[in-house]
Amino acid sequence: MDPLRDEKLRQVPGLLNEEKIDLWLTFGRESSATPDPIADVLIGSGYTWQSAFLLHKSGARVAIVGSLEEPHYRTLGLYPEIIGYKASIREPLLAVLKRFKPRKIAVNTSVSNVLADGLTHGMYEILAGYLRKTPYAKRLVSSESLVAKLRGRKSATELARIGRAVAVTEEIIDVLRRDVRVGMTEKEAASILSHEVEKRGLVPAWDPLHCPAVFTGPESAGAHSGPTDRKIEPGHLMNIDFGVRLDGYCSDLQRTWYFLRAGERKAPPAVQKAFNTIRDAIEIAGKELKPGVEMWNVDRRARSHITSAGYDEFQHATGHEIGRQAHDGLILCPKWERYGKIPKMKTEEGQVYTLEPRINVPGHGVATMEEIAVVTKRGAKYLSHPQRELWLS
Amino acid sequence: MDPLRDEKLRQVPGLLNEEKIDLWLTFGRESSATPDPIADVLIGSGYTWQSAFLLHKSGARVAIVGSLEEPHYRTLGLYPEIIGYKASIREPLLAVLKRFKPRKIAVNTSVSNVLADGLTHGMYEILAGYLRKTPYAKRLVSSESLVAKLRGRKSATELARIGRAVAVTEEIIDVLRRDVRVGMTEKEAASILSHEVEKRGLVPAWDPLHCPAVFTGPESAGAHSGPTDRKIEPGHLMNIDFGVRLDGYCSDLQRTWYFLRAGERKAPPAVQKAFNTIRDAIEIAGKELKPGVEMWNVDRRARSHITSAGYDEFQHATGHEIGRQAHDGLILCPKWERYGKIPKMKTEEGQVYTLEPRINVPGHGVATMEEIAVVTKRGAKYLSHPQRELWLS
Repeated sequence: MDPLRDEKLRQVPGLLNEEKIDLWLTFGRESSATPDPIADVLIGSGYTWQSAFLLHKSGARVAIVGSLEEPHYRTLGLYPEIIGYKASIREPLLAVLKRFKPRKIAVNTSVSNVLADGLTHGMYEILAGYLRKTPYAKRLVSSESLVAKLRGRKSATELARIGRAVAVTEEIIDVLRRDVRVGMTEKEAASILSHEVEKRGLVPAWDPLHCPAVFTGPESAGAHSGPTDRKIEPGHLMNIDFGVRLDGYCSDLQRTWYFLRAGERKAPPAVQKAFNTIRDAIEIAGKELKPGVEMWNVDRRARSHITSAGYDEFQHATGHEIGRQAHDGLILCPKWERYGKIPKMKTEEGQVYTLEPRINVPGHGVATMEEIAVVTKRGAKYLSHPQRELWLS
Repeated sequence: MDPLRDEKLRQVPGLLNEEKIDLWLTFGRESSATPDPIADVLIGSGYTWQSAFLLHKSGARVAIVGSLEEPHYRTLGLYPEIIGYKASIREPLLAVLKRFKPRKIAVNTSVSNVLADGLTHGMYEILAGYLRKTPYAKRLVSSESLVAKLRGRKSATELARIGRAVAVTEEIIDVLRRDVRVGMTEKEAASILSHEVEKRGLVPAWDPLHCPAVFTGPESAGAHSGPTDRKIEPGHLMNIDFGVRLDGYCSDLQRTWYFLRAGERKAPPAVQKAFNTIRDAIEIAGKELKPGVEMWNVDRRARSHITSAGYDEFQHATGHEIGRQAHDGLILCPKWERYGKIPKMKTEEGQVYTLEPRINVPGHGVATMEEIAVVTKRGAKYLSHPQRELWLS
């Protein structure tokens, strides 16, 4: 049995009671094609046929899987009761529901939180079909509050793993810091990082086409693009966006360099001012990262510090939770429609967030840092070593 | 631009006209958390914010993505029109719909076909919200027929890639055939295969915990389980289930060995009979693998050959399509509820299927082969070299 996954499953009955939900039903099929993002936390293995994983507020755990997968789930040992079926999951599923008689059943569908939105619309319709003419049809609620709290409340083991992922990432970035030079392409800089990741037997924290991301100079493509053949030139700001997955947990850091032009001994004032503004915006937002603060309020601190310094506001959120996924749930975001109900949600102690504002410096490139911090009563406790100085090269 | 992906996108207008659908809308967010299985074919890259990829019957292709991802999608070049947005996708999405005025809009939701079911229920509700009070709200249909035909009708390039994946898999299995021996554990046998996969710079065709799968002896856990420390003993049937991904396309083969006991020069009659029955069941089902045959009819040929020889029927389908995914769409399955409408769907020329019946032989283990064949007018044309003899060791 995976002890960390068991540790997370042990948190569930408390959360169900807190949220006044009787049963949490994860329902899916062919996890290789349509994985449910919470399955990595609650199940830890794939499934082929329609499968149901039920967690009851009493602590009972029941898995209903295709008969060919029953032995495999017995071996895993996380679900003490395992029911294998052949022709249809309908009967065993209804039988288990009748036994628990839940008044509220959480399913993985959410408008706001993508990590609580693993149920496909087709599977939702299949489930609705099974429940038709039963009292349970009208008892489905979103698991979003359960998912947010379960992912968000990091255990000591989880914090230690994120901390190790961050430490290794910083160690790898130090290699790039030593070797990076004018004339190198974005791809070459990225491959120095990738090589160090492989050497350690690790994998990138997200899509390897975009991790590591490297952007140099004023014409760089902006965030969420892969590295190109563009060369680092004197006068460029270069930034990287990079993380690793270690023991199942992610890091996600951004760092900024400035490449001196002939005769320069420090960065031009416009570049230095942008760097300082980002650095201070992170510090100010971090102080607000206390339990019980609405997301938009943390975002606003970073955002207004930047706009009041005369810069355009950045076109993304100030930060996001991080954990088993690089984007692990809640988002420190402004009240924009694309963020749904998230801006009004509140921080909790033990959550881990990134802080990552950015400023475009015309003629030079983008200044951006991304730090990782855990929420404490006194504000952010950093798991990364925040970049305090612009790195000159 | 990825030429193969462009080739598949060029097939879409013809399919839209064939299915009398005006527009195909793929709508998603955070593809790393909730990937849409058709995105690998239609998009070929990840997205973070709510994103829409629209394919019109005229051949027009429009992508609407978060503004930070706009430059990246321009670089990819598959979608000539790219619209970046900041606060909400609602307005640009409605504007594009108004321009095309579609009477039928296909979205990725399907009860029957998991590969056409990438739209989550939460995203479905968000989309329904955007379309409320527009004429498009009632014009949504399932993309399942488009997905089935687009994935199913393999181009020459695709067939060649699957063929190469199969050839390499057979080459790797030959290494195991040479080295396998009594006393070896399932894990050791699996690691011989995994090592050969890595050596070639390839990856397994599915979840590496279950690929390769190795099962030896009468107590083996059955399909869909990872290899264990169980040792190969004389008198065991051993089977493997194994495939690789090569240039984006998968193989998926099963092979069976018998390990002779002291004094044996051939397999016991019960073992040999089971092997022959499987081999013949595949051959008989393969002859039925012509265009226009309903799925359950191909399945029935293999199934009834096995039951009429006095064996229990196998608890899964006779085969499945294979391509970019090991499970690539349609399934040669019986009329069981868990398969929804698939049993009545029909084969088409150019589709590629596995054929994989199985028989449990008490006291020895499981006899099973899995072959890969393309549908032709004369029945199956094998891409694998069917196992004709029980491998003795």
